Amino acid sequence: MMKAAAEEFDRHGYDATSLSRISAVAGVSIGAVTFHFSSKADLADAVQQEGRAVTLGGLERLTAGPLSPLRLVIDLTLELARLMEQESSVRAAIRLARERPDTDAWSDAWLPMVRALLDQAYERGQLRTDALPADVTLLVEHLTNGAEAYLRGRMGSGPAFESTVAQLRRIWHLALVGVSSDDGVILPQPRTRAPSQAGAAD
Amino acid sequence: MMKAAAEEFDRHGYDATSLSRISAVAGVSIGAVTFHFSSKADLADAVQQEGRAVTLGGLERLTAGPLSPLRLVIDLTLELARLMEQESSVRAAIRLARERPDTDAWSDAWLPMVRALLDQAYERGQLRTDALPADVTLLVEHLTNGAEAYLRGRMGSGPAFESTVAQLRRIWHLALVGVSSDDGVILPQPRTRAPSQAGAAD
Repeated sequence: MMKAAAEEFDRHGYDATSLSRISAVAGVSIGAVTFHFSSKADLADAVQQEGRAVTLGGLERLTAGPLSPLRLVIDLTLELARLMEQESSVRAAIRLARERPDTDAWSDAWLPMVRALLDQAYERGQLRTDALPADVTLLVEHLTNGAEAYLRGRMGSGPAFESTVAQLRRIWHLALVGVSSDDGVILPQPRTRAPSQAGAAD
Repeated sequence: MMKAAAEEFDRHGYDATSLSRISAVAGVSIGAVTFHFSSKADLADAVQQEGRAVTLGGLERLTAGPLSPLRLVIDLTLELARLMEQESSVRAAIRLARERPDTDAWSDAWLPMVRALLDQAYERGQLRTDALPADVTLLVEHLTNGAEAYLRGRMGSGPAFESTVAQLRRIWHLALVGVSSDDGVILPQPRTRAPSQAGAAD
């Protein structure tokens, strides 16, 4: 029943999912569902908890290894993408947390770990001196959210899409060594207001 | 009425929005709504079209300027983030396209432009020789999706959140020059299966 609930919440979201639909998909009586979960919110809480537990289980296997902090952050990101691809409870936990703003965000379960590892990486000199741990953490958060959006956009469109794990590996390669051939002044300066004229700030 | 429709679709999504609710929020009769739009799908189509038009309008102001291709890609990304922050039609277009898989994705409106600019940047030597345009395009797609997810997670939580434009500027700084202090062999090799044991592949 938890698996059916995760799949329904993942596919249709919180609002469009009902306990009676989950009971039908799971092939159990509505009484059996409500015996365990008195409300849809209760069941969603349980699915979110399971998704976080599955996520932390995946990450703990990695952190038990002998990897350097930066390498570990990369492997954690790839493992998060793998979990998103393969575990409906993880996808449901991500979606439910977004749709139920009063509950903990899925990333709250692992972002502090990523930040702590990046602090270590910085202290050990693995990061460039101007690559601040807070900024790299933000990059990881964006890549993970981007991977989920990609996955959600492609789901149901057949198996002919590229694995998000492979995509993140390509992106990490870029992010580690840099996109630009020139270390110079290409980045635009912060502007205090939106650009109103083409090229005006250049 | 289009503004009310964009705001409702943006906040509540396609399924949870009805023509009668939009008519109530816009303060017009349901007859006035159905006179212009015979169905919710029609109105959603119009909102998505407007969101794409607003997006392309914002980008065209930039491309009229004298910027180099790589710089232009960065500015386009920042402009997309600004549009997401400020334009409900853009946010609605993104959300509706995701929730209505039979319609064009919002990114279809601008990703080809980004790819063409990155091809130019590569030819002009602005990119590292191993920073392939396809991979940088993928990075842009992930950052944009990540910015939208961040924004959606923080909306309604008051003005005390960081601008996504400022965030993307920090991330671009990293991505341009690279995160790692070492150009060496830190990136993990592709694995054909999921890691089953901690550190086994290292």
